[in-house]
Amino acid sequence: MPRAADRFPDRVEPARRLLSTDARHTGHGGTTHQGGEERGMTEPGSQASVEQPGVLFDLDGTLIDSVYQHVLAWQEALSGSGIDLSVWKIHRRIGMSGGLFVSALLRETGGSLSADEIRALNLAHAEAYIQRRDTVRPLPGARELLAALTEHQVRWAIATSGLAIAAQPALDMLGLPPDTPLITRDQVRYAKPDPDLFLAAAARVGTDIHSAVVVGDSIWDLLAARRAGALGVGLLSGGYGREELERAGAYRVYADPADLLRHLDEIGIRDLVPPLPTTEMCRRDISAWSEH
Amino acid sequence: MPRAADRFPDRVEPARRLLSTDARHTGHGGTTHQGGEERGMTEPGSQASVEQPGVLFDLDGTLIDSVYQHVLAWQEALSGSGIDLSVWKIHRRIGMSGGLFVSALLRETGGSLSADEIRALNLAHAEAYIQRRDTVRPLPGARELLAALTEHQVRWAIATSGLAIAAQPALDMLGLPPDTPLITRDQVRYAKPDPDLFLAAAARVGTDIHSAVVVGDSIWDLLAARRAGALGVGLLSGGYGREELERAGAYRVYADPADLLRHLDEIGIRDLVPPLPTTEMCRRDISAWSEH
Repeated sequence: MPRAADRFPDRVEPARRLLSTDARHTGHGGTTHQGGEERGMTEPGSQASVEQPGVLFDLDGTLIDSVYQHVLAWQEALSGSGIDLSVWKIHRRIGMSGGLFVSALLRETGGSLSADEIRALNLAHAEAYIQRRDTVRPLPGARELLAALTEHQVRWAIATSGLAIAAQPALDMLGLPPDTPLITRDQVRYAKPDPDLFLAAAARVGTDIHSAVVVGDSIWDLLAARRAGALGVGLLSGGYGREELERAGAYRVYADPADLLRHLDEIGIRDLVPPLPTTEMCRRDISAWSEH
Repeated sequence: MPRAADRFPDRVEPARRLLSTDARHTGHGGTTHQGGEERGMTEPGSQASVEQPGVLFDLDGTLIDSVYQHVLAWQEALSGSGIDLSVWKIHRRIGMSGGLFVSALLRETGGSLSADEIRALNLAHAEAYIQRRDTVRPLPGARELLAALTEHQVRWAIATSGLAIAAQPALDMLGLPPDTPLITRDQVRYAKPDPDLFLAAAARVGTDIHSAVVVGDSIWDLLAARRAGALGVGLLSGGYGREELERAGAYRVYADPADLLRHLDEIGIRDLVPPLPTTEMCRRDISAWSEH
């Protein structure tokens, strides 16, 4: 399988630039950590030598409980433009790029929209969403999951098809600092289900996309994960069914961030208690056996 | 397999009473049609001898596009009672009986509610839903599907876990007369996923539940259909995924009422154009072949 950089050379380049400018300084979750080079220099057996996979998160429906508000905000915006679309069809397209979303709805309705109308539609959605934003909460376990990853020296980032202006307030809600690694629609050429957002996010925190885990609630996250060469993990908290996520390529499906936190071992996140030297482990094991 | 009446004698009895009082006069969809006895007296080969299966519809998410409004109305009501529940968990329980819904959410939250608190919660939900009701629309094809069934002399009814006071306005929205066969929560002992609503609906329009088709958008409809002994058909228009509905026992899954209307033959609804006598058909076939 070719590396992502070979398959998507034009897309990885912006991510590389991001990496070269700020990733090694920003770190994961805004906390300090050892960069890739330093890690490689530590001794085998020490904490930092454990190769923890990076974790790249979607935002809406994955860390914050905002999907249904977005869905009804889109319904309101579309209805204001004279476009009546069934609500479930909007739900199934939340999380994909705005351009593809509009293309999809035009296919459904058979209509056409000018560039100005599309801009007005996006503005109307943003306004309708803001009216509903006070009912949006962090998903159960989201804060704790991110804190646990930081504690386990796992590099993580957030990658969303939304714009920075919409995503920044979510960081506050999650109690995250403004310099949290966050890749938004405005920073890449194509949003999900293209792989660009996750490639840029991996580059931003200096983690190998091929060993990274992408966590998302929609099939667009999972398609983007597969195209980026990462392992996709699904959460039910965006309202998709388990089977739908599995069929879209999810290696595992959890209910929400709290459920994922309880099963971090299943996606290869290790407890960083340093292992004892082998000889000592053998002595302890023999001692334990002899006691039975 | 025992008949529904044998398995649920106490539940079917009220449905029998409904049937004896008004079903034979009301007919299907409020239109006039031939009753069961008259049908049996018609000659083989005539229109009325075709045994069309009855069709029993869920309402929210199946005929009207109201699920997401109900979901966020529940979130608002629960939040007002200090209960924060993820929105997808509310979505997955829409359509089940109110009593089971409350039990399910108490299990999630570990809390407890008095009878007064449960009443207040239901009232708060009703008020929050009414605020959103002006955005509710009939689902695509719902009116046309019901009209086509009536035209095809198919007996049909609507059976909802909601109360009559909430369901009646939906009849207006669908352009249906007030005497449309409608079974609501207040008319049976247990709502979905118990079979009572569909058993009462079948009795109401005088159709055999074992040859009837239940059409619904949620796994509670499909579970109730199976327990009633009817064939379950799923619609995606309530926001469940196809695989989820299939796994819950859906014989077929369609996008929405419009999609079901295009595939009525797949659930055994026949076009009522009377078939030509066999000998005549043979002559025509032979004639057609000889022209090629």
